[in-house]
Amino acid sequence: MTRTVYLNGTYLPETEARVSIFDRGFLMADGVYEVTSVLGGRLIDFSGHLIRLQRSLDELGISNPLTSDEWLAAHRELVAVNKITDGMVYLQVTRGNPGDRDFAWGEGVAPTVVLFTQDKPGLADNPQALTGLRVISIPDIRWGRRDIKTVQLLYPSMAKMMAKKAGVDDAWFVEDGNVTEGTSNNVYIVKGNKIITRPLSNDILHGITRAAVLRFAKEAQFEIEERLFTVEEAKAADEAFTTSASAFVMPVVEIDGAAIGTGKPGRVAPRLREIYLDEMRKAAI
Amino acid sequence: MTRTVYLNGTYLPETEARVSIFDRGFLMADGVYEVTSVLGGRLIDFSGHLIRLQRSLDELGISNPLTSDEWLAAHRELVAVNKITDGMVYLQVTRGNPGDRDFAWGEGVAPTVVLFTQDKPGLADNPQALTGLRVISIPDIRWGRRDIKTVQLLYPSMAKMMAKKAGVDDAWFVEDGNVTEGTSNNVYIVKGNKIITRPLSNDILHGITRAAVLRFAKEAQFEIEERLFTVEEAKAADEAFTTSASAFVMPVVEIDGAAIGTGKPGRVAPRLREIYLDEMRKAAI
Repeated sequence: MTRTVYLNGTYLPETEARVSIFDRGFLMADGVYEVTSVLGGRLIDFSGHLIRLQRSLDELGISNPLTSDEWLAAHRELVAVNKITDGMVYLQVTRGNPGDRDFAWGEGVAPTVVLFTQDKPGLADNPQALTGLRVISIPDIRWGRRDIKTVQLLYPSMAKMMAKKAGVDDAWFVEDGNVTEGTSNNVYIVKGNKIITRPLSNDILHGITRAAVLRFAKEAQFEIEERLFTVEEAKAADEAFTTSASAFVMPVVEIDGAAIGTGKPGRVAPRLREIYLDEMRKAAI
Repeated sequence: MTRTVYLNGTYLPETEARVSIFDRGFLMADGVYEVTSVLGGRLIDFSGHLIRLQRSLDELGISNPLTSDEWLAAHRELVAVNKITDGMVYLQVTRGNPGDRDFAWGEGVAPTVVLFTQDKPGLADNPQALTGLRVISIPDIRWGRRDIKTVQLLYPSMAKMMAKKAGVDDAWFVEDGNVTEGTSNNVYIVKGNKIITRPLSNDILHGITRAAVLRFAKEAQFEIEERLFTVEEAKAADEAFTTSASAFVMPVVEIDGAAIGTGKPGRVAPRLREIYLDEMRKAAI
């Protein structure tokens, strides 16, 4: 089935959705994005994504082209018309098409807005949640403002390919000896009743799912310790896991060939996954 | 006049040149580029750009979609049809449109090829070459593979805007206390008969113009010292300058408000600019 996508106010077949070669998103990676999960036809943590979108746009000085109501309407329309039960809605805003290429940008250019869906039946029933992910660690050579959710995703893409080549599921980035995050997720280790994760800074994405999971973890009486940790510490942890908007909570059972804990998902990550999915389904809109 | 541009084998009006929203260049900054100057209707150092393009493509595992002859023919066709005497030809190759968004990439997707011209009458007679550039220094927070000429140009764009806001012409990036390069140029300082510039590594672009200018400088009996240098050392230098494919050799007369040398272009940069332009015009194709 040909998807219907959204481009600058128009709903059209995916095969017809094109942007100018002069769009700054295409020429200069001058754009930001968000991905919202859909479960049971409803949007998960939508307001969190809109708040982060606004922050990313503010950091780059791009005006938000749609109101919150318009964003919601566009998401819902795409979910409806594409009959998405489980999946994702991707949105991207770029600084638009100034008509020519220049590093400097001017005023008065309308941002480009793109939304499309991805159909993922059974998204919340991913069998990998039962077996856990295997990851490798690689140097984090991304730019210094990973808190802005830009489309500069070449290195995360290369990292995914390195993981694939190594026969594992994902890669964790390491900078100055400490783990920053995964290719498209925040990362955690568990020691006893303590969940350890890197504090927010410009070094990592301020995960919407991270915020929700940490809140639920506190409510479930886990101790949260926001601090740096190393790969060696991860290897010696009882458990490890990742959070992201589209994979929720995922156990990590191996890093650089070393089993974490028993080498199988432990008790914390599956429990947090369950709480997260239960609570977010209830709050979905 | 509406430019004619090149897109995937077709010459078409610039207003009709569009790429899919699923192009990895648009979604993931998964692409590389080159800019070749045109002087007197001929291409400057064209083979140098093709060699670097091949290197960038190889580093990312993108197959080169055109032969050298085809690249040359497309460049020449655009220069002719758009009646470019002085200006630039921009080329971009992305990993293409796999039809959906995914960090990992597969085989069998045709790269996207874009070329367009920019008309810059009197490109070699830029009056700034007589007055020199004023620059500020800012932290270099770009990714770690600046030797690959990718379209991840958001931070260089932000840097240009910071320079503009500061009322100067450009910004120099500083990492670990040393200057790496300018927003879109390699940088040099001069002390006596010595030209000092950062050695090639993953930290900087391997400038085509850098290579040519260093060759000409050696022939002109200058001493070349490839090593790191600081902003303080630049401030204390006799001269400073930049090289790039579209601005050639440009004197830099001020950094962070401090005059370099006399605060006016010295003897070395203008001489190298003259030699470079003379030699490259002779060799242009």
